[in-house]
Amino acid sequence: MQTKPPAKKQSWKPGNMLFPVPAVLVSCGGTKEWKPNLITIAWAGSVCTNPPMLSISVRPERYSYDIIKQTGEFVVNIPTVKQTKATDWCGVVSGRDHDKFEKTGLTPAPGLKVKCPAVLECPVNIECRVVQTLELGSHVMFIAEVVAVQASSELIDAKGKLCLEKAGLIAFVHGEYFALGQYLGHFGFSVRKKPAKAPAKNPRRQK
Amino acid sequence: MQTKPPAKKQSWKPGNMLFPVPAVLVSCGGTKEWKPNLITIAWAGSVCTNPPMLSISVRPERYSYDIIKQTGEFVVNIPTVKQTKATDWCGVVSGRDHDKFEKTGLTPAPGLKVKCPAVLECPVNIECRVVQTLELGSHVMFIAEVVAVQASSELIDAKGKLCLEKAGLIAFVHGEYFALGQYLGHFGFSVRKKPAKAPAKNPRRQK
Repeated sequence: MQTKPPAKKQSWKPGNMLFPVPAVLVSCGGTKEWKPNLITIAWAGSVCTNPPMLSISVRPERYSYDIIKQTGEFVVNIPTVKQTKATDWCGVVSGRDHDKFEKTGLTPAPGLKVKCPAVLECPVNIECRVVQTLELGSHVMFIAEVVAVQASSELIDAKGKLCLEKAGLIAFVHGEYFALGQYLGHFGFSVRKKPAKAPAKNPRRQK
Repeated sequence: MQTKPPAKKQSWKPGNMLFPVPAVLVSCGGTKEWKPNLITIAWAGSVCTNPPMLSISVRPERYSYDIIKQTGEFVVNIPTVKQTKATDWCGVVSGRDHDKFEKTGLTPAPGLKVKCPAVLECPVNIECRVVQTLELGSHVMFIAEVVAVQASSELIDAKGKLCLEKAGLIAFVHGEYFALGQYLGHFGFSVRKKPAKAPAKNPRRQK
């Protein structure tokens, strides 16, 4: 441990530098008390495989905070590049001032296991029920269990595989949105054994 | 709420479908008790802006789990496309069997505020101290405060701006690694007012 970074590095202000992260449309509300609403969240991540859980972090002053806090439900809708502008807009304006579904033209679709709406146009809708709430500082983290998932039929191939790479997902990096680019490999490619050479079709018999 | 998804959608097994997510090299150890080690984590995310906090989720059976649990420290190192193979490899083999720094050729560099090493070759190193540990199921979530950041001098421009988009970051989507692609816009672009038209250089006087 030393107090100066190595020659190639500079000390930077401690901050949120973990990138790329998702930028997702979180829907909530749709009850008697609350109209359907949308909020864009980048502080989101998977946190447990079994049971499947994710977390989103929301500032308490946001309109959606009270909705999620009181209803205990939300849907994480994965947007595509076509929805970049709507995704950005839902992150900068408030549901107190706008009907975000109406203004964006996005369609509220019924959830399978939750009362709040999903976004029809997003290829994946992850329905979540809050299991734990942590007040961390500027943000409150909602840890939630995934109770249902809806996926776009267009992305499911003949073998029943979900081809999410075809959806055109958005990544968020340090205040900027990017499409995904070049395919680099699949999980485990670094230890995959090369297939044995196929035998020649007409091997010469060794004498 | 209904039990059948809309026509364009199919119900999918509830699972971890939040993508893209980061795939980061987490370094830990480097104390008397523990050698320096690396583990690749995709279940990671920012969880609070102030104080800056992030979370990583680790299976308790992983070698790094005990190290982080006991030392309370780790570094999130952001890999680039050049490090895709090393990133994959550190996610599929165990530190019990391999010296991962030695085998990958990655260089342990001193932390500024933590005792465990950072990865010199990664353009951003986020030094973290665990503040809360949650046992969620298959994974344990370490919620940590960012105590220091090191950034590659090459990515900092003449104005002191960190140009992270030049680093060549990796995104992880449903078992596959991708480079980032096309720039789509900056946060807030959807509400940015168009700049007023600049006056013509030689405006014709109106008669």
